[in-house]
Amino acid sequence: MKKLKRSARLVEMTQYLLARPHTLISLTAFADRYQSAKSSISEDLAIIKEVFADEGIGDLSTHAGAAGGVRFVPQCRKDVALQQIKSIISELQQPDRLLPGGYLYMTDLLGQPGMMQEVGRMFASAFADRNIDVIMTVETKGIPLAHATAAFLNLPVVIVRRDHKVTEGSAVSINYVSGSTKRIQTMSLARRALKEESRVLIIDDFMKAGGTIQGMVDLLHEFRAVVAGVGVFVESGEIEHEERLLQDYVSLARLTEVDLKSRHITIQPGNFFDLSESI
Amino acid sequence: MKKLKRSARLVEMTQYLLARPHTLISLTAFADRYQSAKSSISEDLAIIKEVFADEGIGDLSTHAGAAGGVRFVPQCRKDVALQQIKSIISELQQPDRLLPGGYLYMTDLLGQPGMMQEVGRMFASAFADRNIDVIMTVETKGIPLAHATAAFLNLPVVIVRRDHKVTEGSAVSINYVSGSTKRIQTMSLARRALKEESRVLIIDDFMKAGGTIQGMVDLLHEFRAVVAGVGVFVESGEIEHEERLLQDYVSLARLTEVDLKSRHITIQPGNFFDLSESI
Repeated sequence: MKKLKRSARLVEMTQYLLARPHTLISLTAFADRYQSAKSSISEDLAIIKEVFADEGIGDLSTHAGAAGGVRFVPQCRKDVALQQIKSIISELQQPDRLLPGGYLYMTDLLGQPGMMQEVGRMFASAFADRNIDVIMTVETKGIPLAHATAAFLNLPVVIVRRDHKVTEGSAVSINYVSGSTKRIQTMSLARRALKEESRVLIIDDFMKAGGTIQGMVDLLHEFRAVVAGVGVFVESGEIEHEERLLQDYVSLARLTEVDLKSRHITIQPGNFFDLSESI
Repeated sequence: MKKLKRSARLVEMTQYLLARPHTLISLTAFADRYQSAKSSISEDLAIIKEVFADEGIGDLSTHAGAAGGVRFVPQCRKDVALQQIKSIISELQQPDRLLPGGYLYMTDLLGQPGMMQEVGRMFASAFADRNIDVIMTVETKGIPLAHATAAFLNLPVVIVRRDHKVTEGSAVSINYVSGSTKRIQTMSLARRALKEESRVLIIDDFMKAGGTIQGMVDLLHEFRAVVAGVGVFVESGEIEHEERLLQDYVSLARLTEVDLKSRHITIQPGNFFDLSESI
């Protein structure tokens, strides 16, 4: 790469770091890349760090020593995230989203890349310190959420299938009981999709009793893998707490009331916003 | 936002533009945001434009006049893209990817967000000028590709389902014949997913005879929508050109030979790299 002026170097370093979240980059690599002294690189990083912190984009954490360097950890400011989730909630509360059976149409929102990036950033903030190897979801609606989160955490995604496809090779299948409908269903995961003892973050779009997520947890046991966290976009608060199969999860929104007669839907921010720690 | 020094403003503007591809931002908006003169903003944009061009990140196109401003159009450099696709191909050619029936296991690659971003950037380059309203794919493996492309084009994604789900509301279903297996299958799309006369980019992971994509094209006719482009990650070159249902598409890789006995897989760069125009 040609030698750049400081102003151009700042632009280049900013895009380089944003494209490589959760990746340790040594000062030497930057100094070589830009043919600049490490002291200049350090000054540049200090400027970028301050802007990223002020804007709530994330933290540039520096690691000293021979193996040291800098790592961009995407974060979100809780006040900004709360504004974003309130805007999502006001969309979700539109009466025409109510479907027969009390289901909520939200597929369109899961198709908006800008909104997925906001939500992925929230999940990536919530689970930044959990030492995760891989993100898991079940087809179909959880996939955009899992991938958006994965991009910010720099982690691979594995997708659990509802049926076993020939293009997946040999697979492990389990039966599970959907907690709310009590129906027996099947899910399967390709044998080669997951290494033993992987630490897995489960992401899904909606949780009622938690049967589907419990199914994924059971599937993980078959792979001798470990649940490192569970994140759901919307949880249903219509279920008693004791009835829930799963207690430890992060939700971004909570559906508290659906009145089928008046078509009134009430949604509140999820437990992500209850946590007292700053993010 | 507090008033920033030029160095900090360059960092902030860079991240702001990268997060908003294909979005027109007026100089006035930038001047207000940074409490700076438009002349300073213009100088900053010139610096960013040059770095983005040199690095092959994309183009900052400026639009003059009262409604004018700047728009970040993500692109990829063809030499860089060719390196990336060659690295993907060498992964795909591993003999242990061969599955019974001559299928190729590639689910793991579709789960790597870094690789999806490379591929999404290529599709976004290829279709930047097609005046697209929405990206369509069919579940499951095309979803990460569609979303990665959508993020660079700032467009929504709609997902065609293999079966009709209650959480989608009323839907339009069609039967189609998978070109290679000749089996009749069903696909459906929620009625509210697509506006009439939308211009649609179809993205999928694999195309053999093209039956699945032809099914999506037929489904679009039901919505009186228009095909604005077709992009496939890997096309199978094992099929005669005349047998292919679809002639106009962009492929990133082409599977030219699978020898089941020797487990030898041959893959070449797709027709995206044949195009003579610079991208």
